[in-house]
Amino acid sequence: MMIAKSVRKLEGYVPGEQPKNRNVIKLNTNENPYPPSPKCAEVLKNFDLDDLRRYPDPDCTELKAALAKLNGTTPDRIFVGNGSDEILALAARAFVENDEAIGSLDPSYSLYKTLAAIRDVKWVGNRTDGKVALFLWTNPNAPTGTLAARDFVAKTAKSFKGVMLVDEAYADFSRDNCMALATAPGNRNVIVMRTFSKSFSLAGLRVGYCVGPKPLIEALVKVKDSYNVDAIAQKVALAAVKDVKWMRANVKKVVATRTKVAEAMRLRGWTVNESESNFLFARPPAGIEAESVFRELRRRNIFVRWWGIKNVRDFIRVTIGTDGQMQAFLRELERIRRR
Amino acid sequence: MMIAKSVRKLEGYVPGEQPKNRNVIKLNTNENPYPPSPKCAEVLKNFDLDDLRRYPDPDCTELKAALAKLNGTTPDRIFVGNGSDEILALAARAFVENDEAIGSLDPSYSLYKTLAAIRDVKWVGNRTDGKVALFLWTNPNAPTGTLAARDFVAKTAKSFKGVMLVDEAYADFSRDNCMALATAPGNRNVIVMRTFSKSFSLAGLRVGYCVGPKPLIEALVKVKDSYNVDAIAQKVALAAVKDVKWMRANVKKVVATRTKVAEAMRLRGWTVNESESNFLFARPPAGIEAESVFRELRRRNIFVRWWGIKNVRDFIRVTIGTDGQMQAFLRELERIRRR
Repeated sequence: MMIAKSVRKLEGYVPGEQPKNRNVIKLNTNENPYPPSPKCAEVLKNFDLDDLRRYPDPDCTELKAALAKLNGTTPDRIFVGNGSDEILALAARAFVENDEAIGSLDPSYSLYKTLAAIRDVKWVGNRTDGKVALFLWTNPNAPTGTLAARDFVAKTAKSFKGVMLVDEAYADFSRDNCMALATAPGNRNVIVMRTFSKSFSLAGLRVGYCVGPKPLIEALVKVKDSYNVDAIAQKVALAAVKDVKWMRANVKKVVATRTKVAEAMRLRGWTVNESESNFLFARPPAGIEAESVFRELRRRNIFVRWWGIKNVRDFIRVTIGTDGQMQAFLRELERIRRR
Repeated sequence: MMIAKSVRKLEGYVPGEQPKNRNVIKLNTNENPYPPSPKCAEVLKNFDLDDLRRYPDPDCTELKAALAKLNGTTPDRIFVGNGSDEILALAARAFVENDEAIGSLDPSYSLYKTLAAIRDVKWVGNRTDGKVALFLWTNPNAPTGTLAARDFVAKTAKSFKGVMLVDEAYADFSRDNCMALATAPGNRNVIVMRTFSKSFSLAGLRVGYCVGPKPLIEALVKVKDSYNVDAIAQKVALAAVKDVKWMRANVKKVVATRTKVAEAMRLRGWTVNESESNFLFARPPAGIEAESVFRELRRRNIFVRWWGIKNVRDFIRVTIGTDGQMQAFLRELERIRRR
């Protein structure tokens, strides 16, 4: 008794570092380098404290209406969560029996394994057969940055008997996405998930949402906390959706910088994945180790991400910052190469 | 496959109504009638949007430090959640095996049963024996409003082999509380939970916390989402804790009104429980049905709570509002009686 066996052996997910030092060039957690819409600041300035005294709308009615319009669907096919992370945890609860399993790409978002462990079910990697009841498909994928074709996702979902959750955290930075699969009338098992953390520059707000068939959305509603999204988050996210032009302009800047940085890194001998996201996944030229690049950059207050695990240890993942931040990053790469 | 069996049969928790109409006198969800500290408004007015662009502090470091000080303990014995509701769901995950059970007072907060159903384990009512691994003890209890003595809670916890979670949502309105059991050095299994939703007037913010033995707090950390409390909520809650005088002044007003209203209702023939919370649980005089009082009040835009279930159907639960709201409430009771 006391602590459940599965929890005792849990190691827990380790998120990217959030340094208190504001002088750090922070290219390690795929945050947007540009601020959210000024409409978000207005919401905060004019927020009626009476809306904090009361419980928030448990159904996120206004936010769902705006998201339905944005995605060409109806509010009853939308679920809003306290960040996408909450939606993932609820999906593991709603769509997976105790003796079933969770699949995902591999490598992919490393939280998925932890999520399966918290739910106390098996994570089986890149498989959709057997006992797999929920497949988490990050698209574009992280940390690789690459996009799977929509038709391929559709075909895989069609032959899959479980729930296919396409985690499109980075879709706004990509040429294509799978939202049309989620909103299609005949859709039986595809859920497409989006977040306000990346393209909308609102990682601190914790709002994510997903679109899918009504029965699956209703199942998520049944297992959620009553008031899972707070009153401020609902209003700030709504303001961001209504000013979607602002987000798109930021995305355009990030994509332009991404193209330039990828090119510059290739010129310096790096192998850089074709990115459809707001980061680059790249392997240093022969003779330089990814881990040492990561450590050298860190010493110089530039944080990128590196994982000492199979398949990815030869790469670093670099979030696209402002042009100025990326010039500093490239300068340091140059210095490291010359040592 | 698709939707888990236990979820298919779930009915879901029905929270008290949140009417859009602001003319309603809302005495149905135990919100505080007085606004939160003006320091909370200042936080919102001066919030740096850059803190929204980045992920929030996953550890709520500053907030936990302030809460540790407030409760005479250390930050490593504190867990902060997206409302107490999240902490309850995480406790059900961390402290209960699939073949174990959850207990609670009965009647009590009706969410507990739903929580057990979501976790797919049995809820066994007011029992701490056998397979009960987690006992949820609302103290003061809801909807009854009554307080169990600290010694009795301590004795029960001592002979209990599972985790005793004392849900003290209403403790600030009470003469006593069990925090000393949670912070005691020898404490093995008592967790005391508090919320910002009631006494701090911040139901819309979704922040709750709990205090307990380090191993149990660490288990909760392992199963939580990485960034479960958003950046704004952390700062607003911190401002509220730092201005605890404001909260205490509001509580004093609510308690004074509670005493007057209970007296007035008793004079009108109602049986009113001795309340240690921010609501009254009361039975109408003979010849008047609780359900009809509830419906009559509702027609007149005064919302109270009534449940058509065993043991409580003869009572209504009335949140303590402002003096003006309670006068309106008493006037309507008078009218109903005279019909």
